[in-house]
Amino acid sequence: MSIQTPEPIAHPLRDELELSAVLHALSDPVRLMIVAELAKGSGECTCGSFALPVTKSTCTHHFKVLREAGLIQQRQQGTTRLNTLRRDDLESRFPGLLATILAAAGDPAAAVAEAV
Amino acid sequence: MSIQTPEPIAHPLRDELELSAVLHALSDPVRLMIVAELAKGSGECTCGSFALPVTKSTCTHHFKVLREAGLIQQRQQGTTRLNTLRRDDLESRFPGLLATILAAAGDPAAAVAEAV
Repeated sequence: MSIQTPEPIAHPLRDELELSAVLHALSDPVRLMIVAELAKGSGECTCGSFALPVTKSTCTHHFKVLREAGLIQQRQQGTTRLNTLRRDDLESRFPGLLATILAAAGDPAAAVAEAV
Repeated sequence: MSIQTPEPIAHPLRDELELSAVLHALSDPVRLMIVAELAKGSGECTCGSFALPVTKSTCTHHFKVLREAGLIQQRQQGTTRLNTLRRDDLESRFPGLLATILAAAGDPAAAVAEAV
């Protein structure tokens, strides 16, 4: 019997964060809404805790884009992934960027609901 | 003989500018460089005045994406298009956004040169 070890979840280091990847990640209304929700809270959230108007696989894709751009940290706990915003890394790398974009976004949840 | 009238160049109104389109437009290093160059100057620039490491048709595409997102104003003069940054419209719609992104970008021209 082989024991299956989950693949490690890759994250870019702080110094590797790229502005173009961050802007691309936030250019999707659903991903922007996820980040806005994470920014409101302080703890870890499961993917399922967001009321997203998309299928589970699309949702998984969005979280992957956010992770690869360095916006969120993901860790596996059993069968779920817990997500946190990399607020300090983003602020250190691109001062004021996240706050300015979130302010410009207003209420992304309402925007997503409107678009559905 | 028919006289060919150039198609009017469409621009979104200030109130129609969408954050997702603006972020998407700026998520490409070449487009970010174009905007950074326009932000440095105060006048109109032709597409050809930018030292861009891309073909003419790619360049035309980038300017179209920027125009459709509301970042630049284009007007036809003879056979060339003159471009200006819609700084006031952007500032009114998304206060501080452009300045914060340009500050985060550092020197986009160097980043583009590095990527080539």
